[in-house]
Amino acid sequence: MGIRDTILERDGRQFPGKSYAEAVLVPIFEQAKRHLLAPMLAIHRAHLVMLVERGIVPAGQGRRILAALASIDPAEVARSRYDGRFEDLFFYIEELLIQRAGEVAGNLHIARSRNDMGVAMYRMVLRRQLLDVLDGMVALHQTLVRLAEEHVDTLCLAYTHTQPAQPTTLAHYLLAAADVLARDIERLQQAYRQVNRSPLGAAALTTSGFPVDRQRVAELLGFDGLVENSYDAIASVDYLTEAAAALQLAFVHTGRMVQDLLVWCTQEFGALRLADAYVQCSSIMPQKRNPVGLEHARALLSSGAASAAAVVAVIHNTPFGDIVDSEDDLQPHLWRAAEVGARVFPLLANVVGTVEVNRELLERRARASFATVTELADALVRHHGLDFRTAHRVVARAVARATAAGRTAAEITAADVAAASAEVLGAPLAVAEDTVRQALDPGVFVRVRRVTGGPAPEEVRRMLAARGQVQASLRAWVEERRAALKRAEAELDRACRELATDGAGA
Amino acid sequence: MGIRDTILERDGRQFPGKSYAEAVLVPIFEQAKRHLLAPMLAIHRAHLVMLVERGIVPAGQGRRILAALASIDPAEVARSRYDGRFEDLFFYIEELLIQRAGEVAGNLHIARSRNDMGVAMYRMVLRRQLLDVLDGMVALHQTLVRLAEEHVDTLCLAYTHTQPAQPTTLAHYLLAAADVLARDIERLQQAYRQVNRSPLGAAALTTSGFPVDRQRVAELLGFDGLVENSYDAIASVDYLTEAAAALQLAFVHTGRMVQDLLVWCTQEFGALRLADAYVQCSSIMPQKRNPVGLEHARALLSSGAASAAAVVAVIHNTPFGDIVDSEDDLQPHLWRAAEVGARVFPLLANVVGTVEVNRELLERRARASFATVTELADALVRHHGLDFRTAHRVVARAVARATAAGRTAAEITAADVAAASAEVLGAPLAVAEDTVRQALDPGVFVRVRRVTGGPAPEEVRRMLAARGQVQASLRAWVEERRAALKRAEAELDRACRELATDGAGA
Amino acid sequence: MGIRDTILERDGRQFPGKSYAEAVLVPIFEQAKRHLLAPMLAIHRAHLVMLVERGIVPAGQGRRILAALASIDPAEVARSRYDGRFEDLFFYIEELLIQRAGEVAGNLHIARSRNDMGVAMYRMVLRRQLLDVLDGMVALHQTLVRLAEEHVDTLCLAYTHTQPAQPTTLAHYLLAAADVLARDIERLQQAYRQVNRSPLGAAALTTSGFPVDRQRVAELLGFDGLVENSYDAIASVDYLTEAAAALQLAFVHTGRMVQDLLVWCTQEFGALRLADAYVQCSSIMPQKRNPVGLEHARALLSSGAASAAAVVAVIHNTPFGDIVDSEDDLQPHLWRAAEVGARVFPLLANVVGTVEVNRELLERRARASFATVTELADALVRHHGLDFRTAHRVVARAVARATAAGRTAAEITAADVAAASAEVLGAPLAVAEDTVRQALDPGVFVRVRRVTGGPAPEEVRRMLAARGQVQASLRAWVEERRAALKRAEAELDRACRELATDGAGA
Amino acid sequence: MGIRDTILERDGRQFPGKSYAEAVLVPIFEQAKRHLLAPMLAIHRAHLVMLVERGIVPAGQGRRILAALASIDPAEVARSRYDGRFEDLFFYIEELLIQRAGEVAGNLHIARSRNDMGVAMYRMVLRRQLLDVLDGMVALHQTLVRLAEEHVDTLCLAYTHTQPAQPTTLAHYLLAAADVLARDIERLQQAYRQVNRSPLGAAALTTSGFPVDRQRVAELLGFDGLVENSYDAIASVDYLTEAAAALQLAFVHTGRMVQDLLVWCTQEFGALRLADAYVQCSSIMPQKRNPVGLEHARALLSSGAASAAAVVAVIHNTPFGDIVDSEDDLQPHLWRAAEVGARVFPLLANVVGTVEVNRELLERRARASFATVTELADALVRHHGLDFRTAHRVVARAVARATAAGRTAAEITAADVAAASAEVLGAPLAVAEDTVRQALDPGVFVRVRRVTGGPAPEEVRRMLAARGQVQASLRAWVEERRAALKRAEAELDRACRELATDGAGA
Repeated sequence: MGIRDTILERDGRQFPGKSYAEAVLVPIFEQAKRHLLAPMLAIHRAHLVMLVERGIVPAGQGRRILAALASIDPAEVARSRYDGRFEDLFFYIEELLIQRAGEVAGNLHIARSRNDMGVAMYRMVLRRQLLDVLDGMVALHQTLVRLAEEHVDTLCLAYTHTQPAQPTTLAHYLLAAADVLARDIERLQQAYRQVNRSPLGAAALTTSGFPVDRQRVAELLGFDGLVENSYDAIASVDYLTEAAAALQLAFVHTGRMVQDLLVWCTQEFGALRLADAYVQCSSIMPQKRNPVGLEHARALLSSGAASAAAVVAVIHNTPFGDIVDSEDDLQPHLWRAAEVGARVFPLLANVVGTVEVNRELLERRARASFATVTELADALVRHHGLDFRTAHRVVARAVARATAAGRTAAEITAADVAAASAEVLGAPLAVAEDTVRQALDPGVFVRVRRVTGGPAPEEVRRMLAARGQVQASLRAWVEERRAALKRAEAELDRACRELATDGAGA
Repeated sequence: MGIRDTILERDGRQFPGKSYAEAVLVPIFEQAKRHLLAPMLAIHRAHLVMLVERGIVPAGQGRRILAALASIDPAEVARSRYDGRFEDLFFYIEELLIQRAGEVAGNLHIARSRNDMGVAMYRMVLRRQLLDVLDGMVALHQTLVRLAEEHVDTLCLAYTHTQPAQPTTLAHYLLAAADVLARDIERLQQAYRQVNRSPLGAAALTTSGFPVDRQRVAELLGFDGLVENSYDAIASVDYLTEAAAALQLAFVHTGRMVQDLLVWCTQEFGALRLADAYVQCSSIMPQKRNPVGLEHARALLSSGAASAAAVVAVIHNTPFGDIVDSEDDLQPHLWRAAEVGARVFPLLANVVGTVEVNRELLERRARASFATVTELADALVRHHGLDFRTAHRVVARAVARATAAGRTAAEITAADVAAASAEVLGAPLAVAEDTVRQALDPGVFVRVRRVTGGPAPEEVRRMLAARGQVQASLRAWVEERRAALKRAEAELDRACRELATDGAGA
Repeated sequence: MGIRDTILERDGRQFPGKSYAEAVLVPIFEQAKRHLLAPMLAIHRAHLVMLVERGIVPAGQGRRILAALASIDPAEVARSRYDGRFEDLFFYIEELLIQRAGEVAGNLHIARSRNDMGVAMYRMVLRRQLLDVLDGMVALHQTLVRLAEEHVDTLCLAYTHTQPAQPTTLAHYLLAAADVLARDIERLQQAYRQVNRSPLGAAALTTSGFPVDRQRVAELLGFDGLVENSYDAIASVDYLTEAAAALQLAFVHTGRMVQDLLVWCTQEFGALRLADAYVQCSSIMPQKRNPVGLEHARALLSSGAASAAAVVAVIHNTPFGDIVDSEDDLQPHLWRAAEVGARVFPLLANVVGTVEVNRELLERRARASFATVTELADALVRHHGLDFRTAHRVVARAVARATAAGRTAAEITAADVAAASAEVLGAPLAVAEDTVRQALDPGVFVRVRRVTGGPAPEEVRRMLAARGQVQASLRAWVEERRAALKRAEAELDRACRELATDGAGA
Repeated sequence: MGIRDTILERDGRQFPGKSYAEAVLVPIFEQAKRHLLAPMLAIHRAHLVMLVERGIVPAGQGRRILAALASIDPAEVARSRYDGRFEDLFFYIEELLIQRAGEVAGNLHIARSRNDMGVAMYRMVLRRQLLDVLDGMVALHQTLVRLAEEHVDTLCLAYTHTQPAQPTTLAHYLLAAADVLARDIERLQQAYRQVNRSPLGAAALTTSGFPVDRQRVAELLGFDGLVENSYDAIASVDYLTEAAAALQLAFVHTGRMVQDLLVWCTQEFGALRLADAYVQCSSIMPQKRNPVGLEHARALLSSGAASAAAVVAVIHNTPFGDIVDSEDDLQPHLWRAAEVGARVFPLLANVVGTVEVNRELLERRARASFATVTELADALVRHHGLDFRTAHRVVARAVARATAAGRTAAEITAADVAAASAEVLGAPLAVAEDTVRQALDPGVFVRVRRVTGGPAPEEVRRMLAARGQVQASLRAWVEERRAALKRAEAELDRACRELATDGAGA
C-alpha cells in the first residue's frame, strides 16, 4: 500500500479527514460557540428583517424563519460539541433552522454569504471588546487625574539617565502619564470607528443581484456606516490591524509607567507603598511586600502587546484578494490582546489609585540632591547679568566647595557663591543669601516654572481642570457608543416584533 | 594587575573610553551630521529669536549669536569626523559658536536643554520623512484610481481560497485596493499630527523659570501646536510609535496587493505583463521576464514593516520617566522604515500604473469558470419562486449534467435546468434559454450587482467619481502641510533678518 | 471619601483585591489545573523520596505524606474553581495534604521553594509538548522522503523570480524540503536538551542548608542533568526562548513549502490535487476545490510562529535577577505555539502525503518552456569549444529564430543553431540534430546533473538512501526520549512503593 | 496620453526604470561594494582553480582570467558609483574581467550562477561577522568569570519580586550570568556551523552538467562542508534565521543582566559605581553620574534584537521554491544585528569589568534585611525537630516581636525565639543564642549552602575552576575557526600561484 492509501485509510477518505477535524474544525467550533453565536443570531435577524422589508422574502416566510430563530437556545448550543455532522457553527445553526422552519429557512441566505457574515461577526465581537478595554482605560485615566489632584504639591525628583535630574511634583508626572493615556484612548476610539462599519451585503464579495438595503442592515446592527466597496468589505484587514496596533501601543506605553512604579516600590527607593490588596506578603519576612499587582500588570501588558503584534505578523505576506476562512486562526490573537486589556487596565486603576506615597521621603531626597543647582545658575543669569556659561562655571565651583566641605546642595551658601565667582570672574558677586536659599529650594524651583506645561502648582491646576474635561469627554464617548448599540438592539427587537405580528403570511 | 586596571589601561581612564566612543559616539555623530544638523540650526535660530523677543537675551547679543549661526557651513560640518574633542554634534556646534561669538553664545542655551532640543529635532526629521512617504502613497493611490477608470468593464475572476469564486471587474478590485490605501494614508496623516507638535520650552523636563514663549517657538518652526505638559513633551514616545505603527500597517496592507500582482504575473496565470522598465530579462530565455519591480517592492515592504515594528519592540519595558540619550540608538529603525516608504511607494505607483492587462484571457477565464452558477440559482429564486436551497440543488444537478457531458458552465442549457429540476422537484421548470444564458454570462453577473459597493459599471463609476475627490483631498493635505512648513521657514527667516538689522545692541 | 478608600471599598482591603483575583489569580488557577497538576505531583513524590533517602525526613513521616499524595484525585482537582481560599494550585494541594497527613505534610517543603518547583513544572510540561511536536515533524519528514521516492523521475519546473528557471524533479524539491525540516528537527532536539535539565534543589535560588541530592531528584523525574548554578536555575529563561525560537523557525520554514504547494494547487498551475479529505467542496461549483487543509496549515504555522515570537518579546527588558511569578503570564504563549505545532505537522504530513501529482502536465510544461536552453549553450561549450559567452549568444539567436517562427524551445533545430552561429561567429557550427534534441530534453537536462546534490535520478537515489537513515535516527531519538521518561516514571513508582512498604516509621 | 505612457515617459521605457534604479539598484550596489567584493573575488578565484583542476577550463585560459582577477583594485571599485551601465556589482566586475582578459573571461561562469554565488557570498560575510560577535561575547564571559573570582565572599541580596529575598554572593550571581552567556555562545557557534557550509556548485539550483568538484571549492573557501542538495543550497534560509535567532536570544538575555546593573547603579541602590570612562558627568551636578555605558548597551542590545527579529519576520510567508534577488533587501537587517553585537559585547566587557562594588553597603543591607529568617526556621527543623510549618510559625512570631520592638532581623534573640515558641507550641524552645546568631548571619547563610550549584565559597570556587575551562574552550573554538579560514586563504593563494606559474597555456 502506498503512502497515500496508508494515510487515507487512517485519516478517512471523506472530508474532513480526522487530522483536519482535530487540527482545525474542533478548535474553531469551540471558539465560534463562545464568541460568535450572539452576533450570528443578530445578523440572521437583521438580514431577515431587511429581506422582508425589501420584499425579497415574503412576510409569511419571514415569520416562520423568525420563529425558528427565536427558538434557538444559546445554552443548548453552548453544550454542543463538534461531531462531524456540521462543518462549523454556521451549518449547525442552519440545520436547526431548517428542522424548525423547513426548507424556506434557506431563504435567510439570499443575497449574502459566509464571507460577509464572517467579517461582520468578527467586527461585532471586536467592537464590544474594544469598549470593554476602553472602560478600563478611562478608569485608569480618571485615577491618574484624581491622584494628580492630591499631589499638586508633592515634591519629587525627576530622573534622567536613571539619575536625579530636577525636582518636580508627582502631579506633573501623573498628568504626563494621563496625557499619554488619553492619546492611547483616542487611538483606540479611532480604531473603533474603523471596526464599527458594516460589510454586510457584500455577500461573497460582489454584493448580489437582489435589491438589498445595506444601510438598513447596518443600522439594525448598530454599525456606524458601511465598508462601501464590497471587495474591500471582504478582503481588507485593517479593521483588525488598526485595533491591534492601537492596543499594542497602549500596552507598551502603559508598561513604561508601570516600570517606574515598580522601581519606586522597591525598598531602596521606598517612594510608594501598594495597598495590601495588591501585595503578596510573607509572614516570616514582613518587609517583603511583593508588589504582585504591578508585576502581573507589567507581565500582562507585555503579553497583550505580544498578542496584538501577532495579528499584524500573521497577516504579513498574505494575498489581499484571497479571502479565506483561515482568518479563524488569526482572530484569537486579537481576542486575547483585548481580553488582557479588559483585565489589566481596571487592575492598574485600582493599584495606582490606592498607592500610598511617602511624601516626606520624596521631598527630603529632592532637597538633598544637587538637582536644583541649575536654578542657581539661572538666578545668576537673571539677577546678576552673567552669561549662561559663566554662571554655570561659577555654580560648578560653588558646588565643588560645598562638596569638599561635606555639605549638600541645600547647604551651599552665598559665601560659597562669592568665593566661586571671585575665582571665575576675578571678583566676588554679592549674591544675597536669600537668593541662594530660594534658588536651591526645590519648592521654589517648581513654583517659578509657570510656563505652559510646567510643574508650578497654578499651571498644574490649570491643566488639571482641562484634563477633567478630557476625562468627561472620554467617558462620554464610550457611554454614547454603548447607548448607540443598545438603541440598535432595541430597533432590531422592535422590527422583529413587528414582523412577527404584522400583516398576512405568504 | 586586576581586571579593572587591565581594561582601563587599554580602554582609557577618562570619558569616553575607546570602546564607548567606537560603539556609541562615532555612529551617533555620523547619523547626527546626516539627519540633525539642519533642524538643530533652525531650532537655534527660532529659540534665539524668541529669547530676544521676550527680552531674555539682549538684541545685541542676539545679533552676535545670529551672525555666528549664519557663518556655520553645513558642508564643513558634514566633512568633520568624531575625534573625541566633542562628545557629539551639539557640543561641536556650540564650540563653533563660541569661537565666533564669544562666551555670550552660551546664552543661546538659556531656558532649554538637550532634552527638548533632541525630541524637537527628531520630530522635525520625522515630519519631513512622513511627507515624503505620503507623496509616494498619494501617487500610488492616484495610479490605482486611474487604472480603475480604464478597467471598469474588464471582467476578471475574484478568488477565495485561492480558487475562482465569482466574476467581477478589475476596477472593482483596484478601487478596493485604493480604499485600503486611502485609510493607510489617513492613519499616516493622523500620525503626522502627533509628530508635528513642539516639545520646545520643556527644557530638561520642567520648563524653566524664564518667561519663554513656547507657542512662538513652535510657530517659527512650523509645528502645529505644543506637547503641553513638559514632562510628557520629553518622556513620551507615542509620536514615534504611532508613526511606526502607521508605516508598518501601510507596508503590510500594500504587500497584500503585491502578492496578488505577483501571482497574476506568473506564466501560469498570465493576467498581467509588467512594463520592460521593471522586468529583468534574459536574452537566452525570452519568456523569462523576472518581475523584479514587484519582487523588490514586496521585499522592501517587508523590510520596512520589520524596521517599523522594531521601533515598538525597542521601547518595550523601558521606563517612562527615565529619559535618556539612548533614543539615538532607536531612531535609525524608524528612519529606515520611512526611507523605505519613500522609495517603495513611488516605485509601485510606476510598476502598477504601467502594467498591461490581458483582458481577453481574464474574460475567457471568467466565462469558462463555474463562478456564475450561483447567479443561475439566484435567477431561479427570483423568477421561478424556488426557495434558496432548492434552487441551489437544481443548479447543482444541472452543473453535474453539463460536467458529465464535458461541457463548461457557459454551456449549461435550459434543457439541463429542466431535466435537473424534474429530478429535484418532480416536475421540470420551464426556464427560458435566454434566462439561462443571461444568468451564466459573467458580464450580466457583474451588471446586475448595482447594490452600494458592487461591481456594476454604473456603481463603480459612481465610486470612481467619489474617489477622485478623495484623491484630490489627500493630495491637497500633503501640499498644505508642505506649504505650512515653507511659510514657517519664511517667517523664521524674516524674524532673523529683522533681528540682524534692527535696533541697537546691548 | 478619597479615591483610595473608594477603590478599596469596592475591591476589598485584603489580599487579593477582587480585580487582582479576576485579572490574575483565576486565569492562572485554571491554566495550572490543566497543565501543572501532574508535574506538581510527580515533583512532590520525587522530592519526598529523596528527602527520606537522605534522612532529612524520617521514613514514617514520608509514608504518611506519600499516602496523602496518593489520595489526591486529579479529576476532583480539575473540577475545583478558584474561590479565594487558596492563592493558587500549590496552596490548594498543600491544604489537601495537610488535611490528610497533618502538619508533617509541611515537611515536604523542606529544602525547596515555589521558585524551583515552578521552573521544574514548566520544564516538564514543555518537554512533553516538544516531543509531541517532534512526533509530527518526524511524520512529515517521513512523508516527504517517501513521496520523493515516488517522484524520482517526475520532471517539473523549478522557479526563480516566480518564473520557470530550470527543469528538475519533484523528488529533488521534496528532498530539499526534507533537509530543511531535518535541520528544524535537530534544532528542536537541541532545545529539548536545554529544557530537560533540572532546576530542583535550587530552592528559592541559593539551594539550601539541608544535604539534598539534586541529581537523585533529577533522575527520578527523568531530567537529563542539572542546571547547575542555582541562581541560573531560577533566573534564566533560555530554556523557554531557545524552544520558542526553534518552534518559530520550524513554523516559518515549513510555511515556505506550504506557500509553494498552495500555488501549485491553483487551477492555473494545476500541478497538485489534494485528497478529498482535505478539500472543502461546493456541489454547485464542482471545480472549486478549496484546499482548506493547506490553507489552515499555513495560517496555523503563522499563528504558531507569532505565539513563539511573543515569548521572546515578553522577556525583553525584564531583569535577570528579579524572579517573579509573572512568568505565569508568559508560559501560555509558548504552550499555544507548541499546541499548534502538535496539530499542524501531523495534518501536513497527511495532506502532503496524499497529494495527487499531475505528472503529465508538469512534464509537458518542462518541455514547452525555454528552461533548457542554457543546457544547449553548455553543450556548445563542451562539444564545440565555444567560450561561455559566445555560446550563450549563439543560443539566444537560435531561440529568437524559433520564437519568431512560432516554435517552442523544444522545437529548436540544428538548422537554427547553424544559422545562429553563422550570424554570431561568421561560420555555421555543424551541430548534430541529436545534440540539439538531447540538450533541449528536460529529461536529459536532469540526468546529466549527477554532481553531488544534483537532480539526476542516481544522485537523488543516493540521497534518498541517506535520508532514510536520517529519518530512522530522528525517529529513534524521539522514541528514546519517551522511553527515558517512561523509565524514570517507573523508577519513581518503584521508589515510592519501596518507601510506602519498607521499614519502620518514625 | 494614458497613465502608462505618462509614467514611462518620465521613468524611462528601458530596464531599469529610474524609480527602480533609485529604489533598488543604487542602494544594493552600495551595500554590495562594502560587503560583497572580497568574497566575490575569492569565489571567482576558487571556482577558477577548480575549473582548471578538473580540466573544464584550459590552464592557459585560467591564467589569463586569473591575471585579470589579480588586476582588480578594490579601492577603485569602492569609488565606483552605480551609473546604469551595469545592473549590479557582479556585472561590473565581469565587465572589468572581459576588458582585461577578453571573452574567455566568460568561462569563469561555467557551471555556476549568480544564485549559488549570492548565497555563498552572504555566508562568507556572515561567518566573519559571527566570529566578530563571538570575540566580544567571549571577552564578556571572561570578564564575568574574573570578576566572580574577586567576589566569592562579597555578600549581597538576591531579589525576587523586586524585593530582597535571600543573601548570596556577587560571585554566585556573576557565574549565573556567565553560564547563560556560555549557552548563548554555544548557540551562536551552532549557528556558525550551519552558516559555514558551501552552496557552490548548486549553480542556478540544479548543479550543472559539467563535472565540477563542489568539495574542492568548499575547501578553498574555508567552508566546513556542503549544503548537499542543490535546491536546498539555493532556496533554504535557515542559515540566516538560525544566526538571527541566536543573536536575538543573546541580546535579550544579556539585556536582562544590564537591567540589573542599571538599577544597582542608581543612587538609591548605590551598589555599583561605573568607571569614569563610561559615565557622562555634569560639573554642576557632581552626583549625577549618568551610566551611559550601560544605558547605550541596553539600547543597543534592544536594537540588535529587533534587527535580528526582522530577519525572521521578512522571511515569513515567502515561498520556498521561489528564489529571488530580493534577499538583498533582507541581509542588511542581519548585518546590522551582527554589527551591533560586535560593538556592544566588547563595550559591556569593559563596563562590567571595571565596575566598583560597594561591598560594605551590600553586606550591610544583607545583614539588615529579614532575608535570613528562613534559615532560622530551617535551623529549628534541623536542630529541634520541629516540622517545617511549625518552625515557620515560630519564626514569624519571633520576627513580629523583634519588629514591634523596632529591631531588625539581625537583632532577633534566642529569647524572642523562646517566647515565640511558647506561644506557638505551648512551651519555649531552648535555642542557643549562638544558633540564632549563626542562623541570622548572612555569611553563615551562604556558607552552609554547599549543595551543587549553591553560593558557598567552596562550591563557587569549584564552579569557577570549571568555568575557567569553559572559558578556555570557548576562546579556543573561535581561534580555531579563524585559523581554519586563514589556512583556507593560504591554500587558495597557493593554488592560484601554482595556476599562475605552472604548465603550458591553451
